Formats: sequence, structure tokens, C-alpha cells
Amino acid sequence: MVSFAGGYPSPSLFDADGLKEAAGVAMSFGGPTLQYGATEGSVELREQLVSLMLARGISSPVDRVLVTTGSQQAFDIVVRILLNSDDVAYVETPAYPAAIQALNLAKARIVQVPLDSDGLDVDRLEAMLREAQPQDRPRLLYTVPTFSNPCGTRLSATRRARLVELALEYEFTIVEDDPYSELSFTADRLLPVYAVAANKVPQERNPVIYLSSLSKTVAPALRIGWMVASTDIIRRSVVAKQTMDLCTSPIAQAVAAVYLASGRYPQTVANACAEYGRRMHCMTTELKKRLGDSLRFDTPAGGMFLWGRMEGNVQPSRVFAEAVELGVVYVPGRAFYATDPDAHAFRFSYAAPNCEQIKEGVSRFADAIERSLADAGAVSDEVSR
Amino acid sequence: MVSFAGGYPSPSLFDADGLKEAAGVAMSFGGPTLQYGATEGSVELREQLVSLMLARGISSPVDRVLVTTGSQQAFDIVVRILLNSDDVAYVETPAYPAAIQALNLAKARIVQVPLDSDGLDVDRLEAMLREAQPQDRPRLLYTVPTFSNPCGTRLSATRRARLVELALEYEFTIVEDDPYSELSFTADRLLPVYAVAANKVPQERNPVIYLSSLSKTVAPALRIGWMVASTDIIRRSVVAKQTMDLCTSPIAQAVAAVYLASGRYPQTVANACAEYGRRMHCMTTELKKRLGDSLRFDTPAGGMFLWGRMEGNVQPSRVFAEAVELGVVYVPGRAFYATDPDAHAFRFSYAAPNCEQIKEGVSRFADAIERSLADAGAVSDEVSR
Repeated sequence: MVSFAGGYPSPSLFDADGLKEAAGVAMSFGGPTLQYGATEGSVELREQLVSLMLARGISSPVDRVLVTTGSQQAFDIVVRILLNSDDVAYVETPAYPAAIQALNLAKARIVQVPLDSDGLDVDRLEAMLREAQPQDRPRLLYTVPTFSNPCGTRLSATRRARLVELALEYEFTIVEDDPYSELSFTADRLLPVYAVAANKVPQERNPVIYLSSLSKTVAPALRIGWMVASTDIIRRSVVAKQTMDLCTSPIAQAVAAVYLASGRYPQTVANACAEYGRRMHCMTTELKKRLGDSLRFDTPAGGMFLWGRMEGNVQPSRVFAEAVELGVVYVPGRAFYATDPDAHAFRFSYAAPNCEQIKEGVSRFADAIERSLADAGAVSDEVSR
Repeated sequence: MVSFAGGYPSPSLFDADGLKEAAGVAMSFGGPTLQYGATEGSVELREQLVSLMLARGISSPVDRVLVTTGSQQAFDIVVRILLNSDDVAYVETPAYPAAIQALNLAKARIVQVPLDSDGLDVDRLEAMLREAQPQDRPRLLYTVPTFSNPCGTRLSATRRARLVELALEYEFTIVEDDPYSELSFTADRLLPVYAVAANKVPQERNPVIYLSSLSKTVAPALRIGWMVASTDIIRRSVVAKQTMDLCTSPIAQAVAAVYLASGRYPQTVANACAEYGRRMHCMTTELKKRLGDSLRFDTPAGGMFLWGRMEGNVQPSRVFAEAVELGVVYVPGRAFYATDPDAHAFRFSYAAPNCEQIKEGVSRFADAIERSLADAGAVSDEVSR
């Protein structure tokens, strides 16, 4: 089975030696590394994260950084402290399913804001905000502006500025989820939305909560994410986190801090960019070769995902069933919507399989489409329900 | 400063060498240990936890064990999946403050059930249940039946049986938080409430959710806790945990599993029992010597805490201020109540300081009481507000 389904980074790109070495150093610290740690996170790790963010264009004091158990926890904290049930959350759509799930569990009212090739459609957003009744205005907007999951698209610089203006005007919080931005296939980097806002308003009025993670660049198993926000948001997040897990594993924090301080991180990220870029190229080349215009997608400039739309007469659920039978899986598009899914879309992850597997997987996918077309009409669409 | 305040285990009892060795082994597994793991937890760790629980009298299949990021997260999950706002939660009182905080954040209505020397007062509980209007009946009851935090008391075997009967009759869930039971100073062990119930009803109808942790016996920094519950509760907990942190650090899980498999755990726990027993003895001896009957407490049979009540004319807030000035801290009793705190009570932790520090700390505490009595009337009680 070739899997384009998981949102997992490639294990072959983990710096296992470097991490083992870092763990050895971290475990030699003895007592303090084994005890409970501060809920905010260790100073050593937060200092490393501050340095890491400087390279992204974000300047933040250590005490406005909160270490979390993956950025998943950071978003969960944000939902907890900002949303009451029935509050409105705008979500870029298609969107990361676990974000939708967290909002659903919090009983928020999810309103979908469409994406296009340049990321979140800010014109549409503005119209939605203008037309919304006061009680339907969003408390927050969730977005992955740089290499979206599932679309792989990037919000343009102009739109980043517009988005910040809208947040200030309509007084909502932008939750910028940024796990992928360092996995860029091109040299041009855009400032995070957080940094765009920071150039506009004083730190304490920045409408952006910035979330990031070491999961896609170092290793998911560390479960190290973080949040940058105003003093007030950080304070309330710390109170919430105390009841959630007291603190993120001080062992994992120490391993991460030692690893980041070791100087190996930039090369690890460079390796990942090069390899993911190669795999993306492999995938787009094969898709075009085998399927031509019957499949629409934007070529990702970074990240781990490609978002495709099947044109023509294909029945997506039929294709999926055939694909599984032929030995290739991916995620059908409906997983990325809170409501009104696009049944003709799907997400391919090119991060985990290598080029050979990608070629084979695309070939099976193309065969699945052909078989679904041949079958069409002959078999009723049982899987679409 | 001598601190009797923290609920921290003693770093001198951590098996730092054993954990370092386990980390070395775990990090040698490479790829899979660095990737995302199953939300339920690794099979290797869950198998170790099943063995560990067998020694406590709990028999559970692996698939009814959920690994959590500390038992704090396990309780947070329980609160999320079982309680809506305004639902009633009974809480043994005095109680672990972070449990109260989690219930408050969930907007539950907390109803306090008193403890005495034999643990939760089940007669009082029964009366409360009988008198409660249907809408005021509890959805759950939170208790630390074995070596309570803050009281150090243990629920008697008779009361364990009664508690289970009441849960079955009045249809509430018992949340049994059990981080301390292996830290026993005596050879007689009581069955966990979970096991008492398991002997009475089929597994899927067991009204107890069992929570435990490696924080007090191995190391808090692992952030390894777990839950045992019915299939339905585990399933819903997994869904909730996905949005909370996806999975508990697979690195920490691998370290814990390797450590438990290494065979070093029983000796580590035996060392902790011996040393905490010594420290407890030190503390109770000194308290009696210095303060005699003016201080009331039950001698703990295990765990990390002693709960005292000051008798007579002492002004607790005045004592606390003097104590801080003289160089000893502890936790004033009010922290352990959701409402109506007992201002004359306090919690002393004897786990972290050694015997010499305990003697010095108790001496300073006794001096603080004397000074507060000498001052009484002379100074208005500014700190009590």
C-alpha cells in the first residue's frame, strides 16, 4: 500500500543521532530535568524558541512564549480561554480537521471562509464581516497562512496586511498556526502574520496569537509546540494549562533545548526542505503526466500537502474505493470541512513516501480513476453515503 | 527557607541512572520512537502498566488503558467528556486544588463532601445523595482514596465497598485518583475502589474511572499518567485527547516502558517508601515534641502529606506571615476548598525536605506560632483578608 494519507513527516529525515545525543546530555542533568517544571516551559527552551523565531521575523521576549504539548495543545488552550459555547469561530476552509474537531467539541459556531491559490480569500472575509450581525461576528479566525493543511497554499503579503487590518477593525483574534513555514521550497519568505501585525500595533494590542511546533522540523514525538501572545493571553493560558497537564514534559523540553542549542537544527531543516521539495516535484510531475488537466491543483511552494480537485465525470467515492483496492490511499476532501464538503477534492501528502513510491502511488491513482470511469453507471455508488 | 509547600517528590529518590539508561535504549529505537504515536498510547507502555496494576489488584485488558500526559490530563479528559456546565460534581474536601480548578473552569457546580480520619465520610455522602433534588445529583465524585492530598488519609475497606454501592445506586461515576498508593508505609494494602467495584459488577458497568501516574514513583518529568475505564469512556476519551495533544510524547512513553521493563521500578518504589516513611516519622515526632496537643493531625500511613489543624487562639494568617519571616513555608488550608475553607488547617509536605530540614522547619513553625500568640492583639490581622 502506498500512503499519501498521513500528515506525518518522513522518519528518514529525523536526525535520530542528533536527538539521541541531545537526550544523553539532557538526561545527564539529573534531578531538575526529572522534576515538575514551570507551566510556562523551561527558560532554556523558550530562549531557543525566541532565537528560532527571530529568523522568521518574529521578535518576542521570553515571557510571552508558552511551551505547549505540541501546537495541538496550544490551539486547544486558545479555544478554551477565548470561546464560550455558541461563540462564532471563522475557519479557513478547507482546514486542518483537528482544529475543526476542537471547535466542535467546544460547541463553537464554525463559519467557513474560503481559500484560493493565494490563501484565505480576504475579500470574501471582509464581505462576511461586514454583513454579519453583531452576535454573529467572530471571536477568532483560524488559519495556516504558510503552506496550508490541506492546500499547501500561502497567503500573499498583501493579504496578510489586509487580514491584520480586518482583525483590528472587526476586533477578532487571528490564530496563526505555523508548523510548516520553514519547510519552504523557495528562497522568498513572507513575514508571519504575527510579525506583520507587530509592525503595525504595540505588542500588547497585537491581534495575532502565533502557534508553532517542532513536530514537522525536528520530531513529532517530542510533542513540543509553543504559543506567542499578549501578556494577558499568556497568563490565562498558563492557568488553563495547569489543569490540562501541569507542564509539558521537562525531559522532552530539555532534549529539544539541547538539540536546538547544538546547532544541528538548520541543517536538519535544510535536508527536509530539499527532500520534500524533491518529493513534491516528483508528485506534481507524475500527476500531470498521468492525468493532465483532468486534475486541478496548485503546485505547493512548501509544506507537506497537495490539494487536488477531480474534474469531469469521476465519482470521487468510487475512485477512492478503487484506489484502496489498487493499493494507494489519500484523504478524501470532506475531512477538511465542518459543513458543505467539496466531494471532488482530496489531499495527497508527499512527505512520507519516497519518489519511487510516489510514482507507483500516482500510477495506481490514475488507474483507479480509469477504472472508476469504466465502472461508472455499472455499479451504484454505495460508498458516497 | 525550608519548604513544606510543594507537592513534589524528592529529587534525591529519582533513579536518574536507570532513567538515563532507559532513555539511551529508547532513543536507539530511532524512527518510530520519534514519530507521532497512537492517541491511546504505545502498546509496550500499556502492557507494562497492566502488569503494574495487577500488583495493585486491578486486572484490565490493554485496550481499556489510555496513556495520558500525567494523570492531570486524565482528569481533565474526564471532566470534558462527562460534565456540561452546571452539572454537579461531588468533591472530597479538602481536595487537590488542580482538581477543583479543572471543575471550576468547566463551570461545574462543585459540592463538597467531607473527609475524616478514615477518608471520605460515606454516611454524610449517603445523606447528601438522598436529600439531593434530581437536578442536584452528582454526575461524578472525585476522590483520592489512598493517601489523600492534602490529608494523607486512607479510605477504609468498609467505606470503599459502601462508596461503590452508592455509585451504583445513585448512578454517578467515581473518579479514583490514585497517584500515591504505592507509597505506603505499612504492609497492609487496600484494594483500589476500582477493583472493589470490579469484584461486584461486570467490567463495562464498573462505575469507577481509575487514574494513576508515574509522577510520584518514577519522575514527574515523564508526564506519564493513565486511565482505566469502560470501553465507551476510553473511546470518548481518545476522541477528546486527539484535540488536546494528539498523543503523549512517544519518547517519554518509550523511556517509561523501557524503565518499567528493566526491573528497577520495585526497588525505586521501595526506596521511596522507606525514605518518605522516615521523613514522615521525623515530622510527626518533631511536631508532637514542639507543639503537643495544640496541633491536631492524623499520622499518615503513606503518601507525601500531613494535614494539620491549629487549635486554640492562634490566628493562622498571622502564623503564616511569621513562618515566612522565620524561613519556613507550607500551604494554608484554604487552597484545598472550593468554598468555605477551614482557615485553621494547613498542609505540610514531608516528601522533599530531609530529616534535618524537617526538624529545622518544624522548629521555625513552632516559633512562628509562639510569635503570633505574643503579637496577638498587638497587630491587626492584615493578612487574613
